[in-house]
Amino acid sequence: MRCRRCGDKAEIYLKRHNAAFCNDCFQVYYSEQVRKNIRREKMFGSKDRVLVVVSGGKDSMALWHKLLKEGYDVTAMYINLGIGDYSDRSQEIVERFSEEYEAPLIVRNIEKDYGFNIPRLAREIRRSTCSLCGTIKRYLFNKVALDGGFDVVATGHNLDDEAATLFGNVLSWQEGYLARQSPVLPSTHPKLVKKVKPLFTLTERENLAYVLFNGISFIHEECPHALGASSILYKEVLNQLEEASPGTKQRFLTNFLKKGRKNFEACSETPDLRECSICGQVTTAEVCSFCRLRQMAEKKKMKADLWAQESENPEQ
Amino acid sequence: MRCRRCGDKAEIYLKRHNAAFCNDCFQVYYSEQVRKNIRREKMFGSKDRVLVVVSGGKDSMALWHKLLKEGYDVTAMYINLGIGDYSDRSQEIVERFSEEYEAPLIVRNIEKDYGFNIPRLAREIRRSTCSLCGTIKRYLFNKVALDGGFDVVATGHNLDDEAATLFGNVLSWQEGYLARQSPVLPSTHPKLVKKVKPLFTLTERENLAYVLFNGISFIHEECPHALGASSILYKEVLNQLEEASPGTKQRFLTNFLKKGRKNFEACSETPDLRECSICGQVTTAEVCSFCRLRQMAEKKKMKADLWAQESENPEQ
Repeated sequence: MRCRRCGDKAEIYLKRHNAAFCNDCFQVYYSEQVRKNIRREKMFGSKDRVLVVVSGGKDSMALWHKLLKEGYDVTAMYINLGIGDYSDRSQEIVERFSEEYEAPLIVRNIEKDYGFNIPRLAREIRRSTCSLCGTIKRYLFNKVALDGGFDVVATGHNLDDEAATLFGNVLSWQEGYLARQSPVLPSTHPKLVKKVKPLFTLTERENLAYVLFNGISFIHEECPHALGASSILYKEVLNQLEEASPGTKQRFLTNFLKKGRKNFEACSETPDLRECSICGQVTTAEVCSFCRLRQMAEKKKMKADLWAQESENPEQ
Repeated sequence: MRCRRCGDKAEIYLKRHNAAFCNDCFQVYYSEQVRKNIRREKMFGSKDRVLVVVSGGKDSMALWHKLLKEGYDVTAMYINLGIGDYSDRSQEIVERFSEEYEAPLIVRNIEKDYGFNIPRLAREIRRSTCSLCGTIKRYLFNKVALDGGFDVVATGHNLDDEAATLFGNVLSWQEGYLARQSPVLPSTHPKLVKKVKPLFTLTERENLAYVLFNGISFIHEECPHALGASSILYKEVLNQLEEASPGTKQRFLTNFLKKGRKNFEACSETPDLRECSICGQVTTAEVCSFCRLRQMAEKKKMKADLWAQESENPEQ
């Protein structure tokens, strides 16, 4: 098969576009997609300070690399979530990339900085690891961006992620979520930083090709807690539909953004935002959900310490 | 496993309801569903004359049987679509049921009455057999109901059908179709008969159990032209989601009807309905799509006859 642009030997075939590319021309295609997304959706400009959230996976590593190459003012943030060996190996990958490309990187460690052990806390308070993780990450993305004076937070969400999320919201007709799903979440409060997804039209496979073609290291496995998550089933199902009719995923998402979403706009309530009485971050309650988690974690820890003391001094 | 209602040995387990039933109690469950649907959605009353459209398949045979047992004023209509052996065998099944239950039946034969050979015409005018078939059936449902003075047309569409249709419409965000999808299509013109789907909350499997438990004959195979249709893929995909999370299909459809659909109501344009200048049936154009198909079929036939004549008398 020949490259659509230059006629050389092709190295990747994109069925949904019915186009094959060589390595170099694939990079041109990839750059054009990212540039178009940033420009059309007014994500950020060349003077904006961008905080790109990286996990060590192919998508966020591709985004970090691409934004650096495009000359944006980019700083990466890695959050070590304390998920054993998985978190440590991904931190290593991110740190090595930062050194190699002399790219600024902020590292946060949930257990060291805040005392959360996510898997343990999830068991103790009977919440899913993924929902806990989501709460903590959303809090930190915003806090680090705000404290560091960043204009925008960029994440590596790809077309497969966005289509799977949309699919889940449609299956249960979550009107509020449908109203808000977008590649750009604008700032609706002075203490809430804008969030963008520059890779929302690129598939997992295309991001994988990008990192492989550019020799970028990344962590291959999924987070061990994500196994069995419904989002993985939704991705599988969408892949079957894509196989039968290439372009289904993209049509599903882009038609939603163009035609579907506007029908749910009336369902989007503007929440009454205020500042958390403990940390000052934006919340809809008196105390934000991050600070509530911290309080719960401390209580559990105090109980455990007390129990340990009693075991050591059983006579008292 | 024991029957939820009477404690006897269960013969069917309905995972989405986490309930098992014996034969008799399943019939009670089934009747309650049909009655609730007819009453809640205001489909028809005991004095209404109902035209039930039957194909010989499990769903429409179950509907026909159930409505007769419930004492409604029911007449069935069977349309022989000229799809070879498949059509003839299903006609036999329907006629045998009509005799056995002394149930009134109207039979139409597309090829004999109108000269359409659906598979051949589809090839000649390059339209899919299924879309042609749909146009012809929709026309005849309404014409027969109108000519016979029926108040309502009932079809055997089940939960799997409705969920698959909804799924297809959502995948491409067909706003107009989403606005109109409903178990009840009211009459919006004096010459347009109301249409209802009393089995829209019952699954294929439940309709199958109903006909088996009641010893009702039915044609087991799908229409040969439906193989490979996207609706079959959508049903497979929904079955996978149902397997992983029982009740998904029902939640998807009922949440749409309760919460989702209202968001698309503004997208439903009231079409400018008038009467076809040839047959007088309701249409949005000068000539209705059925009469246009007839004209095309006649033209193709005239050409073929002319060609046959020329072959017989090559000297002229």
